[in-house]
Amino acid sequence: MLKLYFSPGSCALAPHIALIDAGAQYQTVRLDFSKQEQLSPAYLAINPKGRVPSLVTDRGVLTEIPALLAYIAQTFPAAKLAPIDDPFAFARVQSFNNYLCSTVHVAHAHKQRGYRWVDAEDKTALEAMRRKVPTTVTQCFELIDRDMLQGPWVMGESYTVCDPYLYTLSTWLEGDSVDLNKLPKVRDHRQRMAERANVKRALAEQTGVAKTAA
Amino acid sequence: MLKLYFSPGSCALAPHIALIDAGAQYQTVRLDFSKQEQLSPAYLAINPKGRVPSLVTDRGVLTEIPALLAYIAQTFPAAKLAPIDDPFAFARVQSFNNYLCSTVHVAHAHKQRGYRWVDAEDKTALEAMRRKVPTTVTQCFELIDRDMLQGPWVMGESYTVCDPYLYTLSTWLEGDSVDLNKLPKVRDHRQRMAERANVKRALAEQTGVAKTAA
Repeated sequence: MLKLYFSPGSCALAPHIALIDAGAQYQTVRLDFSKQEQLSPAYLAINPKGRVPSLVTDRGVLTEIPALLAYIAQTFPAAKLAPIDDPFAFARVQSFNNYLCSTVHVAHAHKQRGYRWVDAEDKTALEAMRRKVPTTVTQCFELIDRDMLQGPWVMGESYTVCDPYLYTLSTWLEGDSVDLNKLPKVRDHRQRMAERANVKRALAEQTGVAKTAA
Repeated sequence: MLKLYFSPGSCALAPHIALIDAGAQYQTVRLDFSKQEQLSPAYLAINPKGRVPSLVTDRGVLTEIPALLAYIAQTFPAAKLAPIDDPFAFARVQSFNNYLCSTVHVAHAHKQRGYRWVDAEDKTALEAMRRKVPTTVTQCFELIDRDMLQGPWVMGESYTVCDPYLYTLSTWLEGDSVDLNKLPKVRDHRQRMAERANVKRALAEQTGVAKTAA
């Protein structure tokens, strides 16, 4: 059975929702970042990056959100979570997800995880990074709102694995002091996602109502 | 015909090599970053992110390296540039490429493009970022050398689209003051790639020997 390692509030919510969308059998394992469980020897043996998510399969461990989302879409084709038989349309899905991981998530990470890129003791530089986060994250989401999000779903009429990923990152917007009124399509998309039963179920599982889901 | 927008020395080299590996018919268009051509209205109409590469296809424009590499592998299956019929093996390829785009390239970018994440006038913060680049890029490549690069190619015996991408980023190592002696497998892989005719051809095309390649 697939096993997803996650921490609440992290980007691991995206593949968690996608697993439910796919109708997959899976277990979840919650890591407590406040106890640095992601850096324990046991977890580093699973994922030497010390990050979440990790998806344990019967053939080995997979990491990185866009890779997991494409894997879930391809492994459960009946769920139609991506246009897997059309390389161009599939590449559009992947391009969107790659933008989220390499640019949007990275912009956001400069608020709380600036120590990745400057000395952790350099409070001035960390604060300089934090100050710019509202601007950079707003710019990213304005591009999404204007040029990428077709509506009602990211790729238009068809729901895809882009949707849980965008939803996950858009739940961070208030924390990054981004004005949602500037992002009408992103705001509507987030609301549309929040109303989905699968999203509610994933959130309930992550907050500990159920540690393991079938 | 496919058209690849690139700038010399950028990560666009990776899909450029892959296009040659695939036996694709393509044109290249060189953008001069010193003239900020990537921010011209004409180019922003092609790629509103103002970055390279962009791959123009007969169905529209694609961006983001891992998406382009998967697209090239899927569109030219005879070249066997990825295990496209095996979702797990394909996900391993994608996971590797996602790590390069979201972590390795980002770590490198803090040397010259720190203004993305702090105020461009904040010389102290920019310098604080620059100082950590040798450490962060070394950590990334140590993980690749130890846990990811199977040898002789990234995925083992089979050459894949991971190889031109790793090669491209590994050409930046000296510029980031990384000690290649700590990275024997990465160093050997780079040498192995540099000897390939397709790599030499891509580099020659990018340095202006030929602006258009058939």
